[in-house]
Amino acid sequence: MSNERTEISSLGEFGLIDHLTQNNETKLASTILSVGDDAAVIDHFGKQTVITTDMLVEGIHFDLMYTPLKHLGYKSVVANLSDIYAMNALPTHVTLSIAFSNRFSLEAMDEFYEGVYAACEKYEVDLVGGDTTSSQKGFVISITAIGEVAPDKYVKRSTAQKGDLLCVSGFLGGAFLGLTILEREKRIFAETGSQPDLEDQAYIVGKLLKPEARKDIIEFFATSEITPTSMIDVSDGLSSETLHICKQSNLGCIIYEDKIPVHEEARQFAYKLELDPTACALSGGEDYELLFTLSQSDYDKILLNEQISVIGYMTEAEEGTHILTRGGNKHALVAQGWNHLKR
Amino acid sequence: MSNERTEISSLGEFGLIDHLTQNNETKLASTILSVGDDAAVIDHFGKQTVITTDMLVEGIHFDLMYTPLKHLGYKSVVANLSDIYAMNALPTHVTLSIAFSNRFSLEAMDEFYEGVYAACEKYEVDLVGGDTTSSQKGFVISITAIGEVAPDKYVKRSTAQKGDLLCVSGFLGGAFLGLTILEREKRIFAETGSQPDLEDQAYIVGKLLKPEARKDIIEFFATSEITPTSMIDVSDGLSSETLHICKQSNLGCIIYEDKIPVHEEARQFAYKLELDPTACALSGGEDYELLFTLSQSDYDKILLNEQISVIGYMTEAEEGTHILTRGGNKHALVAQGWNHLKR
Repeated sequence: MSNERTEISSLGEFGLIDHLTQNNETKLASTILSVGDDAAVIDHFGKQTVITTDMLVEGIHFDLMYTPLKHLGYKSVVANLSDIYAMNALPTHVTLSIAFSNRFSLEAMDEFYEGVYAACEKYEVDLVGGDTTSSQKGFVISITAIGEVAPDKYVKRSTAQKGDLLCVSGFLGGAFLGLTILEREKRIFAETGSQPDLEDQAYIVGKLLKPEARKDIIEFFATSEITPTSMIDVSDGLSSETLHICKQSNLGCIIYEDKIPVHEEARQFAYKLELDPTACALSGGEDYELLFTLSQSDYDKILLNEQISVIGYMTEAEEGTHILTRGGNKHALVAQGWNHLKR
Repeated sequence: MSNERTEISSLGEFGLIDHLTQNNETKLASTILSVGDDAAVIDHFGKQTVITTDMLVEGIHFDLMYTPLKHLGYKSVVANLSDIYAMNALPTHVTLSIAFSNRFSLEAMDEFYEGVYAACEKYEVDLVGGDTTSSQKGFVISITAIGEVAPDKYVKRSTAQKGDLLCVSGFLGGAFLGLTILEREKRIFAETGSQPDLEDQAYIVGKLLKPEARKDIIEFFATSEITPTSMIDVSDGLSSETLHICKQSNLGCIIYEDKIPVHEEARQFAYKLELDPTACALSGGEDYELLFTLSQSDYDKILLNEQISVIGYMTEAEEGTHILTRGGNKHALVAQGWNHLKR
């Protein structure tokens, strides 16, 4: 962060909006009208429009003690884009509203927006609207992401079929372990004043602070002519998301513990903290990977993609939702979520 | 409000969402997929999509001392729909995210959502998504509204022409006077404990607490084959909005004070408080009327519509932006906004 501090009140609301959007160039043909009017106008040229929204609250969803504002801006966008990809759609636009107290300077807002624009650039979406306002306390972010999909080609959570393969992209549990180390270092810093050395934990810290959405997987589906039978993004842990697919598709499932992809660095760090890596994957959140089901006949098409792991399969609802452990035990999946592990 | 109090924590996040959306029936053919997945899917069938978003913060935008939660829910939706109408478009969908502290009960949330659903019903829009989360303090609302417009038939702020008539719907200044009386009664109640009698002020209090968006004006434009040359909704006072149109269209204007429509009840109440009714119209906010410019050749078409007042006309930019008072003086328009009057 630069050392300058410009009070936002010196610009006024419209001055602030002008300042924050001055370099906001639109890139897409579908952006007919962007910021600066009562509303933006989008033309998806016959495709269907996909829309999702999220609210992030300081002290609930993020801690500015260890979250650089630029990363926060980036992640806020990415988390929403992830929901659009999880529909097998491509994001095209975002709107961003923020409320912030006068403890934030213009330079702080600039940093936050740098991250927002970096994500828009990387994922090729246009920022087309928003709102900026005061808050009595803390920082609140609301993002709406819009995307497009060929008519009726979106993928829901409720359409998995019995016998389908249950698959996940990338690695799980990393973001939770990143959070764990940052929370630990925050405590140590508060008690002793000593600065953390996080070099050995670049992967897990990066996974928490600067996650990416799996655009590559959606592009792979398109080029490989794969349509998942159902899909969801992993924001609340593997258990919770798997149970959503099972419940909404009225099916059960079996997950094999030894097939759950956990990154080696995450696994080592979990052992160091005496945490179970599998529990971190099942109940840790914010990995922003894609969980999806595939017809068995598509198995050959994903075989060579190292970014996709088959972790189990779908069963009749009567068979329940289970994980088969390395030791050969069968446990019911429980959606404890992120908060449970934090305690 | 009912006297029961159910803690929201007793439901959990997914339980709360299920509860709040259990009666959320979609009405529109364009709603392909609603709440319950990673994102909603909309098909505007070849029309363009219009999108706007707003954030409302307790203590900044509303005071729960005198704002019933049901009215707040209604108004939050209406304020966003007003922006869609101001594009000469029709709203079709909204998403709603809220953050609230544990001081709010489930019954309180139900009341808020009652208002949200009432507005959705009245304006024929579907609620298709959102987010609910905790806040550390207060209540924060973020709404995104989506609408549709025939390709390239939207109306911007920047396209007014020299000589165009400057017109406004309904009456101005009422919401500000409603706020003034409620703030006054709040002070009196705090000092003396005596309950307000607001019966004589039904119009101005209603204008603040339960505003309506001018769907009727947009429908009138359609049936009368009128396309305004520019349009904006009046949320920050007539001065501020007129200056937006002038600046973005690179024009000046003359407004005639005696043509500015102020409701008789508002005018009387302003006199009682020794406020200038014209100043209330120019600088008071939240009226949610439509301000637009029309080609002079369309004058005959609006002549008989009592909901539309011609208040002035557009000039060259060099002539500046002025109001001609009843007394024959010419003053420059100043965008003082709402906050100025409050002081």
